[in-house]
Amino acid sequence: MKKINSNEFRVGYEEKLNLKTRPTLSQPVYENSLEYQEILKQHVTELSEQQELLYASNQYAVLMIFQAMDAAGKDGVIKHVMSGINPQGCQVFSYQHPSLAELQHDFLWRTTRNLPERGRIGIFNRSYYEEVLIVRVHPEILDSEGLINQKIKGENIWLNRYRSIIDLERHLHLNGTRIIKFFLHLSKEEQRKRFLERIDSPDKNWKLSFADIKERQFWKSYMSAFEECMSATSSLDSPWYIVPADDKENARLIVSRIVLDTFQRLNMHYPEPSVKQKHELRLIREKLMK
Amino acid sequence: MKKINSNEFRVGYEEKLNLKTRPTLSQPVYENSLEYQEILKQHVTELSEQQELLYASNQYAVLMIFQAMDAAGKDGVIKHVMSGINPQGCQVFSYQHPSLAELQHDFLWRTTRNLPERGRIGIFNRSYYEEVLIVRVHPEILDSEGLINQKIKGENIWLNRYRSIIDLERHLHLNGTRIIKFFLHLSKEEQRKRFLERIDSPDKNWKLSFADIKERQFWKSYMSAFEECMSATSSLDSPWYIVPADDKENARLIVSRIVLDTFQRLNMHYPEPSVKQKHELRLIREKLMK
Repeated sequence: MKKINSNEFRVGYEEKLNLKTRPTLSQPVYENSLEYQEILKQHVTELSEQQELLYASNQYAVLMIFQAMDAAGKDGVIKHVMSGINPQGCQVFSYQHPSLAELQHDFLWRTTRNLPERGRIGIFNRSYYEEVLIVRVHPEILDSEGLINQKIKGENIWLNRYRSIIDLERHLHLNGTRIIKFFLHLSKEEQRKRFLERIDSPDKNWKLSFADIKERQFWKSYMSAFEECMSATSSLDSPWYIVPADDKENARLIVSRIVLDTFQRLNMHYPEPSVKQKHELRLIREKLMK
Repeated sequence: MKKINSNEFRVGYEEKLNLKTRPTLSQPVYENSLEYQEILKQHVTELSEQQELLYASNQYAVLMIFQAMDAAGKDGVIKHVMSGINPQGCQVFSYQHPSLAELQHDFLWRTTRNLPERGRIGIFNRSYYEEVLIVRVHPEILDSEGLINQKIKGENIWLNRYRSIIDLERHLHLNGTRIIKFFLHLSKEEQRKRFLERIDSPDKNWKLSFADIKERQFWKSYMSAFEECMSATSSLDSPWYIVPADDKENARLIVSRIVLDTFQRLNMHYPEPSVKQKHELRLIREKLMK
């Protein structure tokens, strides 16, 4: 078993990103399927303990954000890494096309409503980052967002959106939310294979639409949008991690390791009862024992 | 009838405020009760027209925030100025003690959920500003907000909160929300009179509690908190207005004038149908006429 170093995948603060220099496939950390299962199980167990501690100490919230091209394995990571977690302490929100009511608000509104409260883990399967990714690749979407003010639609719109996002994340961090952002980095060739698989397996057919195939032709634009977005928004407090995603199993182990490392840095403890509370507990105990 | 100049009441950007130099009572703009009624009616009519335009053009949202000491007349302003407005285009939210679920989130969360959508007027009777006003005067409230992180509770907490607020308002402005913030400036003596009135009129008894009287002893602290808060957060785009509030009627006329001036600067128009739409409308007309 190879040790996973979280920092290897982190996007540095103000780092000028070039996704071509970031691997979509790396040396697997597991030797075989059995070892993969073992490591994953161990990670999930630790994560489950950390989540109980998060809940009991009620000091921090944790928000995980997953962004990627289609078929990169977001759903799989969430399913396999988070399945051992008590669902009472964890909420997943998937963001597809916004509703009419959501389009009537500013672009951060629909996700803000679903932010995790203290003591909980929130998972965003896609997020407000779509607003500087798909919307950047297809700026005509802005029309449906009602931004007919020319100043807003001008050149600075993306810089302004980055800044809104950075400001939001800064505010959340200061108020106790720890944010971890994952880009599952898939190669175009591996996506082709996975799309073919979805066509050939009847029980995966539902996962593929013609629209997905059409988006492949914008691959380069997406990569540029991701590069610029992550360069601009990977802060010291709320970093982006680029996880090689051509090997699904490996990606799950890396993601869970990064999450665990983040939890451990929080250095949480079960709340210690005060002297007065201890005294009260003793009295209650005596009463119950009678 | 005296002309009302909105700018007279505005807090300048980075202005060092001293509330003692701002009047709680100013020369009334109306000569008698009848004229007051006339001006108010005229303002409400114009406001109602502007609100229809806001709704039809669906480009901006307007958020009005009211903050003040108890009995300054917030409820009265909202009632008298906004009663002519179509309630479908206007929502009022009053913020009292936060719920447990709200306390589990960051301090901006509970109000953000209720932000007005494009085309609407949102009114906050008290707001996220309470978090740098009452909470500043009574910092022990922070304990119930779960901020046991020392860094957060240190000296910088108020500066950090101002910045979070400024960042939020900047983001909202860029995305089409126009924010108007009112401080109804009441003298301590006038509050005393109004409290006595509440005791002496049985149908006003419900408005007064012992807690309200207790807060009077923190008057100076509140004034400092208001001064610092408004100095720090009166931006060019989202200004504060300090409205003399010892004369209730006068305050209502000033507030409605400021709101109207803000609306008029938006320079909204009913959406003009395109050539294609005009053609379609002609065809539909012909069909309906048969």
